[in-house]
Amino acid sequence: MKISIIKIGGNVIDYPEKLDEFLGIFAKVPGYKILVHGGGVMATRFGESMGIMPEMVDGRRITDKDTLDIVTMVYAGLINKTVVAKLQALKVNSLGMTGADGNLIRSIKRPVKGIDYGFVGDVQEINTDLIHSLLQLGLLPVINAITHDKKGQLLNTNADSIASALATSLAVDHHVDLYFCFDKPGVLVDEKNDSSIIPLINEDIYKELRKESVIHSGMIPKLDNAFEALKKGVQRVWIGKAENLLMAVKGKKAGTIIERQRYELY
Amino acid sequence: MKISIIKIGGNVIDYPEKLDEFLGIFAKVPGYKILVHGGGVMATRFGESMGIMPEMVDGRRITDKDTLDIVTMVYAGLINKTVVAKLQALKVNSLGMTGADGNLIRSIKRPVKGIDYGFVGDVQEINTDLIHSLLQLGLLPVINAITHDKKGQLLNTNADSIASALATSLAVDHHVDLYFCFDKPGVLVDEKNDSSIIPLINEDIYKELRKESVIHSGMIPKLDNAFEALKKGVQRVWIGKAENLLMAVKGKKAGTIIERQRYELY
Repeated sequence: MKISIIKIGGNVIDYPEKLDEFLGIFAKVPGYKILVHGGGVMATRFGESMGIMPEMVDGRRITDKDTLDIVTMVYAGLINKTVVAKLQALKVNSLGMTGADGNLIRSIKRPVKGIDYGFVGDVQEINTDLIHSLLQLGLLPVINAITHDKKGQLLNTNADSIASALATSLAVDHHVDLYFCFDKPGVLVDEKNDSSIIPLINEDIYKELRKESVIHSGMIPKLDNAFEALKKGVQRVWIGKAENLLMAVKGKKAGTIIERQRYELY
Repeated sequence: MKISIIKIGGNVIDYPEKLDEFLGIFAKVPGYKILVHGGGVMATRFGESMGIMPEMVDGRRITDKDTLDIVTMVYAGLINKTVVAKLQALKVNSLGMTGADGNLIRSIKRPVKGIDYGFVGDVQEINTDLIHSLLQLGLLPVINAITHDKKGQLLNTNADSIASALATSLAVDHHVDLYFCFDKPGVLVDEKNDSSIIPLINEDIYKELRKESVIHSGMIPKLDNAFEALKKGVQRVWIGKAENLLMAVKGKKAGTIIERQRYELY
């Protein structure tokens, strides 16, 4: 099977027009596909309206019991079901899921080392048989950032990590491409210049770019993550804007492609 | 296939200990089974904490856009995923679903006739093929009260109606038993006396009981609904307390059984 795994974040989800535009594009992606989404701003907004303020450490949300309830409601309830209903209207037979549904993603509560992140999960195991069965039934999984520990506890999990874990697990038996829809049009030479996209990065190019400090800070974990996925068998990782997804899927020039093999830059 | 459809309401969901007790019982129900749940008090509580007060007409919730968001969050998010995670811990391979997921339940927005109920749906069509496929994969659907119109709109739907519609649709091809977990131990001769349970009702007995005004008000639509399901092929409908479910499933004396055929009272 050839499977496209596509991850979207708050920059698409938080704006109804952007979400509609994206889902129209997503519906046109050919073949087997999986959508992964988080939440973000919407969870913060609902939490605040209930008097629960977000607590962040180094840009990461601390998930106490109340916060877990809110992200479960917003990610698995409001966002996931809104996306599923909209895709159904586009004749895409989507099925919304958390990691608890069908025991899709088992994670463990992150151990406390200095910082207690609370009910945050790190992915341990993906039920690839289930995904295979669902795809064969013609169902398209729409997976949100809530997982479980198989002991009855829901856990808030990083959606990028879920997308990567799905991709690497499925890559054992399938051809998998992984697409990260991002707030920038790709990996940029100059962060302030949206047209300075680096079209292709492989390990050699990545080493060069890091040496020259073109790639730094927040981009490093994203790319390390991408190369990790490639090492584990994912065919190709793409980073770019949601509106350019279909171009990327069709192999047209858009965003940044991260590949195992060295190719000529186009 | 022999399928048990079990519906629980707020009287189980709103109390964590009761929910845990019920799920332990539910896990022991043998064979193919489907759980249907609404929400109720929890949705009202979350809405109020966000400054959205419930608007009720004749005991029915008016579902405006904000209320729809809240019930979607609470039913499809918090309650559904809490139940799924707890069942997974009990080694029951549950899969949480709204009617939008896999296009399981298509409904239409209730037409305005005097009262505008807002985003309330009446069930039109059940995707029985999907349920059949999921049950065969060893997945146990946990279905909440949110459906969709296949045009992108989520709709708040009565959970009793969902359970009945599932039962009658599945009864075309399968042996279906329908269990309503209720706040009373069954249909009572004297509402104030919990031991005055009527153990079995068929149409003849029902006519008698109505003539004598033993059954009145809120119980009438419930029983009409039950007989409607029986007429459409459901084998048997049960009404009783959640804690007596397993006894009922095993054919032991508990609650009220509503049957097509006339049997001797036990």
